[in-house]
Amino acid sequence: MQKYLGYLIDLDGTMYRGNEEIDGAKEFIEKLYQENIPYVFVTNNSTKTAEDVAKYLQDMQIRASASQIITSSKAIAGYIQSKHSGRKVTCYCIGEEGLKRALNEIGVELTNDINSDYVIVGLDRSITYKKLEGACLAIRNGATFLSTNRDHAIPTEKGMGPGNGAITALISTSTEVEPLFVGKPDSIIMQQALKSIGMSSEQVIMIGDNYHTDIQAGIRANMDTLHVETGVTTKEQLLTFNDQPTYTVKTLKEWIPYI
Amino acid sequence: MQKYLGYLIDLDGTMYRGNEEIDGAKEFIEKLYQENIPYVFVTNNSTKTAEDVAKYLQDMQIRASASQIITSSKAIAGYIQSKHSGRKVTCYCIGEEGLKRALNEIGVELTNDINSDYVIVGLDRSITYKKLEGACLAIRNGATFLSTNRDHAIPTEKGMGPGNGAITALISTSTEVEPLFVGKPDSIIMQQALKSIGMSSEQVIMIGDNYHTDIQAGIRANMDTLHVETGVTTKEQLLTFNDQPTYTVKTLKEWIPYI
Repeated sequence: MQKYLGYLIDLDGTMYRGNEEIDGAKEFIEKLYQENIPYVFVTNNSTKTAEDVAKYLQDMQIRASASQIITSSKAIAGYIQSKHSGRKVTCYCIGEEGLKRALNEIGVELTNDINSDYVIVGLDRSITYKKLEGACLAIRNGATFLSTNRDHAIPTEKGMGPGNGAITALISTSTEVEPLFVGKPDSIIMQQALKSIGMSSEQVIMIGDNYHTDIQAGIRANMDTLHVETGVTTKEQLLTFNDQPTYTVKTLKEWIPYI
Repeated sequence: MQKYLGYLIDLDGTMYRGNEEIDGAKEFIEKLYQENIPYVFVTNNSTKTAEDVAKYLQDMQIRASASQIITSSKAIAGYIQSKHSGRKVTCYCIGEEGLKRALNEIGVELTNDINSDYVIVGLDRSITYKKLEGACLAIRNGATFLSTNRDHAIPTEKGMGPGNGAITALISTSTEVEPLFVGKPDSIIMQQALKSIGMSSEQVIMIGDNYHTDIQAGIRANMDTLHVETGVTTKEQLLTFNDQPTYTVKTLKEWIPYI
């Protein structure tokens, strides 16, 4: 079995489940750390900052720094930066702190002007008709439309609430313009993760619980993939898909000997 | 040419354009009135009450009473009433005054309970994440999902803002449940209009400017249709469609001799 030089790792369902620790996750990361093998966490979450996510992991005694967290917000910021090195760009942004902070950090101007260069959409639990109207108008005026991820639903205290993919569907239905999605399973976040870890797709493995986001993201980015049964996709569901992950394990504990 | 016993008539683009009168509209309605030919106005608008719409027409000296206005809100209310005569039903409602009033008038209970019988969605310019989340949860819990119309975009002061079809797309994307749409071009509003005018589809003609809503609604409901060139769909666009309206005129003035 190939020894991988770097690890790209999903968070929810792989490292933890909501507020609950996942057995073996901490030991798995500890082993990577001891063996000096680089790893980054790749999450579709756009509302939290990388610092927030790192703190959350640290509180579970999982070794992580903000620089090892690639959120869909950081991936969007990285993508925009790669397109406009040095040039000032304006972004009409729907989203929360994590997205705004990531855009601010690369020096773009956040604006309410409907003649902006970009419309950037992430989950926003303070959404208003006025914000949505402005996004639609800016897109009709020619702004490039980016969205953090396709996630249809997210767990809330009461059940499954609308995810960013649903908010994005409102805007794309109204304008008849499809966005460029950045998060898993789309490739931009994976390219940003590779850039961050400084490796090529053949050198790393992508690990996650969700077939449609994590495993598909790895497959589309030409990476080997490892499915874990600690989250969304069960082993039985997995077997119904045409493109299979490279490996599958019950928990990350099983993988520790192969690091 | 057949003499029609009743007229179903669109509003925006047919009777007026925003705040602007359309030449011949007033005279056309006056002729129907003089000839004692019943007519009702059929609008996808869900935010205004029938009384508001009648007042708006009266202010333009167009003869109209609230009982002659079938809004998509009144059509939804009529549909629910036809399904549950006498039985108490609960509705989780996203929408404005026109929708809430129409539902109140048939005695349904408007509720924030996510175990409601129905989720009813109309344009709501005070939309919040919490309202949308509740709608998604109620649908996941088994509520019947109804939506006033498919309209992707509506004219606002600044340009084209999200219409009710876009808000509905957010909820259907998140829940993976498609609603029953009530407004034009779907058939429920047309059935309610026929019920209101007390005629069958062969006895009436449907008039409107928008091919995709008005003319399609008439065609699907087996009515003869009259396209007017005073609104959305031009004569050139009209010719590109397979199913043609029965008649087409530049303005309603041309049709007065055929009443």
